[in-house]
Amino acid sequence: MNKDWPYITPGLPDGMFSRVDGVPMTGEEVRTVMLAKARLARGQVIWDIGSGTGTLSVEAARLARDSTVYAIESKPEAVRATAANVAAWELDNVRVVSGAAPGALRDLPAPDRVFIGGSGGRLVEIINLLADRLQPGGRLVLSAVTVETLQAALQTLVPPIWQREIIQLAVVRERSLGRSHLWQARNPVFLITAWRE
Amino acid sequence: MNKDWPYITPGLPDGMFSRVDGVPMTGEEVRTVMLAKARLARGQVIWDIGSGTGTLSVEAARLARDSTVYAIESKPEAVRATAANVAAWELDNVRVVSGAAPGALRDLPAPDRVFIGGSGGRLVEIINLLADRLQPGGRLVLSAVTVETLQAALQTLVPPIWQREIIQLAVVRERSLGRSHLWQARNPVFLITAWRE
Amino acid sequence: MNKDWPYITPGLPDGMFSRVDGVPMTGEEVRTVMLAKARLARGQVIWDIGSGTGTLSVEAARLARDSTVYAIESKPEAVRATAANVAAWELDNVRVVSGAAPGALRDLPAPDRVFIGGSGGRLVEIINLLADRLQPGGRLVLSAVTVETLQAALQTLVPPIWQREIIQLAVVRERSLGRSHLWQARNPVFLITAWRE
Amino acid sequence: MNKDWPYITPGLPDGMFSRVDGVPMTGEEVRTVMLAKARLARGQVIWDIGSGTGTLSVEAARLARDSTVYAIESKPEAVRATAANVAAWELDNVRVVSGAAPGALRDLPAPDRVFIGGSGGRLVEIINLLADRLQPGGRLVLSAVTVETLQAALQTLVPPIWQREIIQLAVVRERSLGRSHLWQARNPVFLITAWRE
Repeated sequence: MNKDWPYITPGLPDGMFSRVDGVPMTGEEVRTVMLAKARLARGQVIWDIGSGTGTLSVEAARLARDSTVYAIESKPEAVRATAANVAAWELDNVRVVSGAAPGALRDLPAPDRVFIGGSGGRLVEIINLLADRLQPGGRLVLSAVTVETLQAALQTLVPPIWQREIIQLAVVRERSLGRSHLWQARNPVFLITAWRE
Repeated sequence: MNKDWPYITPGLPDGMFSRVDGVPMTGEEVRTVMLAKARLARGQVIWDIGSGTGTLSVEAARLARDSTVYAIESKPEAVRATAANVAAWELDNVRVVSGAAPGALRDLPAPDRVFIGGSGGRLVEIINLLADRLQPGGRLVLSAVTVETLQAALQTLVPPIWQREIIQLAVVRERSLGRSHLWQARNPVFLITAWRE
Repeated sequence: MNKDWPYITPGLPDGMFSRVDGVPMTGEEVRTVMLAKARLARGQVIWDIGSGTGTLSVEAARLARDSTVYAIESKPEAVRATAANVAAWELDNVRVVSGAAPGALRDLPAPDRVFIGGSGGRLVEIINLLADRLQPGGRLVLSAVTVETLQAALQTLVPPIWQREIIQLAVVRERSLGRSHLWQARNPVFLITAWRE
Repeated sequence: MNKDWPYITPGLPDGMFSRVDGVPMTGEEVRTVMLAKARLARGQVIWDIGSGTGTLSVEAARLARDSTVYAIESKPEAVRATAANVAAWELDNVRVVSGAAPGALRDLPAPDRVFIGGSGGRLVEIINLLADRLQPGGRLVLSAVTVETLQAALQTLVPPIWQREIIQLAVVRERSLGRSHLWQARNPVFLITAWRE
């Protein structure tokens, strides 16, 4: 059982999660760095917008058992994937919210931390909502795998409202190919961390 | 005070550590991924060979207060940097060992986890020693920034003794340059995780 | 003498050019790929906007002796660097134009090929001018090392006026460091090639 | 017809070549940089060991019509692909050699330039042969996409016999995905250029 996983560091191996075809999963290295950039603490309200497979929600909930994670997801198969992974890890501090942001966010408690892994093309509206609702000291961590998401983040997460850090993270992995081993690239991810000062 | 840092996720910002000129410091993203690959648990013996500035030792000790971290380092200024950072974070579960591996490792308790950030050109001997002394279920995480270290790891960490995973991690960061912002690359790091089965 | 360089492939080694402190020089691999993306032919008018050290102008002029290259540059020390490199390679088909784009472009013959290595913060105006003046079948190759240039290109080089290809090119080089060799990263460059259809 | 392609810069678009399933093709950016590193001149003997689809042979032969390119390839379908691409570009200075290196190399004239894109696991023997047969002033350009090839090159292409330059080249491309655009990575390639001094 997943609940018996004895290790305390985040960055759970990708193989510890159920996958669903067509539902993207953030790789373990990127997920680890997103959790670090978020600076999780005890007792936080965490939104995971576009939870996909639910891996970030699971890791955040596991690290901070007295925090509450809201996993917001609009695709039915991804909602099911998130729920399945939350159940497999026996976590009782994740609420799976079926619906599209920003609409689905309006009734949730104001967040201390926000992950955005998917925005259904409505990133600017979501960021505008966060400019109002993010708690003092709050942080936003956004992963961009598309040109459009990067572009929207570059335009929107700007002073004087937002301070930001942007990194691009690229992972290459040794992978077996017959008797030899290939250097195999994953697509790079831009990670934008933003906060208000 | 560093001890008041309230966040529970690893990947402390680089700025939270004292630096010493000429003593290399693993960047926060690479350090975060190394901690994840190590799969830390409670009650472990951890060796941090070539501790440099001591950032990995600090993070490992902070995450697992009932584990004991041995920070092994041969350069006097790096020994001092490690000790200073351990003190600033008020950690009582780090032992700073001044000396060169593999000699300095012989009297230490057998490790559950080993980080290798520097080997003074004696990586093959160190890995041979670890083949004997690493505890069952143990894991080794090695960061290679030089061609020679990568080459030694590729040759030595092989079946049937070792199983391994290799990734290359490359981080690019948005950095201010006058009124504009540059995409600035850090040197890539190869991370080799190895275990016995 | 440079004129005796016997090789016909582009991508002249960086060491074959005079450098000036503070004047950026595109590395040889990026320059090579820019020349390829430009698809140079005989008898073209080529603009090299922000010629910097003049390396692209030299290579383009050397490859196509019956083409004319206009090297446009606003910084006096870069104008001198361009002129010095053109002289060292004994090229008579480069015109060095001292002035800032887009103003300095207005009296030049309409281009078949345009390189943009620097725009003095006026990239959008320059691209608007090119939308008028680029010859049928013309091509534009832009190198972006800053976030702002990438952002301006993403917004401006769009259908229905422009078709585009974007790549990011990252080069890591083995470099001597004492007795060992480091994997050293150069900053990544985004190369945007655009044409009208 | 390909012969009517009017452009003089190397780095032909990948789409200008016939592909065969299972026969790897070096991407245009990597091919361009390999041609640059080779420093082609007039009147050379060029070996293209493991010619694959034949793209390097075609480009080299097209750039230097009075050079002779020997395309050596052991897989029948790749031999056919090379021959088909040579024919499509109407080149009469490429000899397609069906056979495995190093055996198939023994009767060929001594080379001025050597590309190695594939070695069938016999890279060390091939390099040993080249140490004897490469002409004075000769150059070798090797592309490594596997861990094993990189490792063999790091061990073999060393002083005092060989001088070398190693780069890693990573290309990310904007690619359409529905209505948005993905940053898509190609696998990185290590390019090792070696010469005798």
